[in-house]
Amino acid sequence: MIDKNYKIVVFGGGSGLSNLLRGLKKYPLDVTAVVTVGDDGGSSGKLRDLFNMLPPGDIRRVLLSLSSNEDLFNDLFSYRFPSDIDGLGGHTVGNIILAALSGMNDNNMSKAIEQLATILNVKHQVLPVAKTPIIIEATFEDGTSAVGESSIVTMNKKIASVRPYGSFEVNEKVIEAINAADIIVYSQGSLYTSLIPNLFFDEVKEALKKSKAPKVYVANVMTQDGETNGYKLSDHVKALADVISTEQIDVVLANDCMDIDCDILKRYNEENSYLVEADIENVKSMNIIVQRSKFIYIEDAYIRHNQNKLAAYIFKILIDMME
Amino acid sequence: MIDKNYKIVVFGGGSGLSNLLRGLKKYPLDVTAVVTVGDDGGSSGKLRDLFNMLPPGDIRRVLLSLSSNEDLFNDLFSYRFPSDIDGLGGHTVGNIILAALSGMNDNNMSKAIEQLATILNVKHQVLPVAKTPIIIEATFEDGTSAVGESSIVTMNKKIASVRPYGSFEVNEKVIEAINAADIIVYSQGSLYTSLIPNLFFDEVKEALKKSKAPKVYVANVMTQDGETNGYKLSDHVKALADVISTEQIDVVLANDCMDIDCDILKRYNEENSYLVEADIENVKSMNIIVQRSKFIYIEDAYIRHNQNKLAAYIFKILIDMME
Repeated sequence: MIDKNYKIVVFGGGSGLSNLLRGLKKYPLDVTAVVTVGDDGGSSGKLRDLFNMLPPGDIRRVLLSLSSNEDLFNDLFSYRFPSDIDGLGGHTVGNIILAALSGMNDNNMSKAIEQLATILNVKHQVLPVAKTPIIIEATFEDGTSAVGESSIVTMNKKIASVRPYGSFEVNEKVIEAINAADIIVYSQGSLYTSLIPNLFFDEVKEALKKSKAPKVYVANVMTQDGETNGYKLSDHVKALADVISTEQIDVVLANDCMDIDCDILKRYNEENSYLVEADIENVKSMNIIVQRSKFIYIEDAYIRHNQNKLAAYIFKILIDMME
Repeated sequence: MIDKNYKIVVFGGGSGLSNLLRGLKKYPLDVTAVVTVGDDGGSSGKLRDLFNMLPPGDIRRVLLSLSSNEDLFNDLFSYRFPSDIDGLGGHTVGNIILAALSGMNDNNMSKAIEQLATILNVKHQVLPVAKTPIIIEATFEDGTSAVGESSIVTMNKKIASVRPYGSFEVNEKVIEAINAADIIVYSQGSLYTSLIPNLFFDEVKEALKKSKAPKVYVANVMTQDGETNGYKLSDHVKALADVISTEQIDVVLANDCMDIDCDILKRYNEENSYLVEADIENVKSMNIIVQRSKFIYIEDAYIRHNQNKLAAYIFKILIDMME
């Protein structure tokens, strides 16, 4: 069985997840990306109102990152018609296609996602964790709370905990994917609004507990304003462990390169984003292995995760476990 | 080399060509479809005016027929937004995507076609025969003439001959494809407005003459009003031979099933379309092999070419020649 494709499940959302998948898709892996579909549509709002469809932005980005023709589809989907073209002006082709898929499928999101995956020539699967968009509630360190992703983030407070607001049904395919997984990854990205809402469900927690696959957390490099202000590495891990327990985290991949140009760091700091302090000993004391390396690079003066290196580390953990 | 993909070049246009390609794509063949891009935009006119793009209808249909996900893309491309959706109402997704591809590529049609082929997951190639849309002029049997595909067809006269109106530059990739071809097919469909305009070019005629590949003409079953009124099988072959000579036609595939429900035939007759009389001896006297079989079936009271059977016959001719 040395030539089979291994099965990987990656939890996350947003650009952090998309970035990681861009690295993983180059390996002989069958990827299942599990994403939270939040309650905030952002710029998809206009079309969502028109067609009563669910907000597609996040799923679209994740599907695109798994496409074997990512560049072409990226150009096409982000193409915006000149504003003087009547009607079409301002719409992106991506939103128009999603609106059509939604209309064709009577607003059945799962079917529309499947078809979009076929269109994008995606050989992997992207699963919304729940059957309907999830609304989350956050409690802040000062005891106050807020409901809904955009309200939470705009409070600019340090989050103490999050939970689902209302009850939501898990997507059974997510459970099947966890059961079949050879390795499980918790992706970098928004800790409370992208990653953790995937893990709220009892069925997900149960499946993770039963799974013998190694479980890897890719830690954030920078704190995120309104979510993780002042968080050290161990605070990120604790927030995750609060939901799934430390036993469901075997390895943490943490950046060890702090050699970043001061001007770049200053710009991040102005937006209340700081380097995550790597308090390794606190994480090790939770009985979790920490692998450190330079996991970042600078692109256009932004700090990016190096998806190729992360994927190489993740694949090596998998291969080592398989022997 | 018994496992290689054979190379086939198919000349044609419109629904006749699309239908044949649907059969051929199931065989281990690398298909090059050569199509005339005519001067008539039809329903693509509005978008063409908006974006100054070339009329894409025919190419789109041919690309779709070669897609490995034809049904899904067919549904998506033909999806028309409800008319009460402001701006988008009335447009099909296919036209919107083509307009975007055209805009992205600064109206470079070849590049846009290549990208559309990638999007549709087409493993074959579709080539416009010329670098710019071709305008044709027809002379009718009564000595009068008309310029432009739609003018010609609406005259409802019997065509005596067609020729290019103005001068056009051949697409060199077409010549390369003919040089490399293991078999060449002249497709069923509009004889004068789809098939023959592909063969006007001296470079194409030269390449066909040099090619040792077997050359097969798939004959029409019904006459077409305004193009081939009163044409027998041999008249079709002669019209083709007038352009490329009888030596460039080895085999004619001709339907021999005249057992068609009278009501269906009557409806065709009302539109001035009649069964093509199979005057086999006249074709044989041109030193051309005629293979006859039931090449049709009835679908929704329409007479259709059986693309699977045609493809099987064509593939067998190829395989027999290869031994």
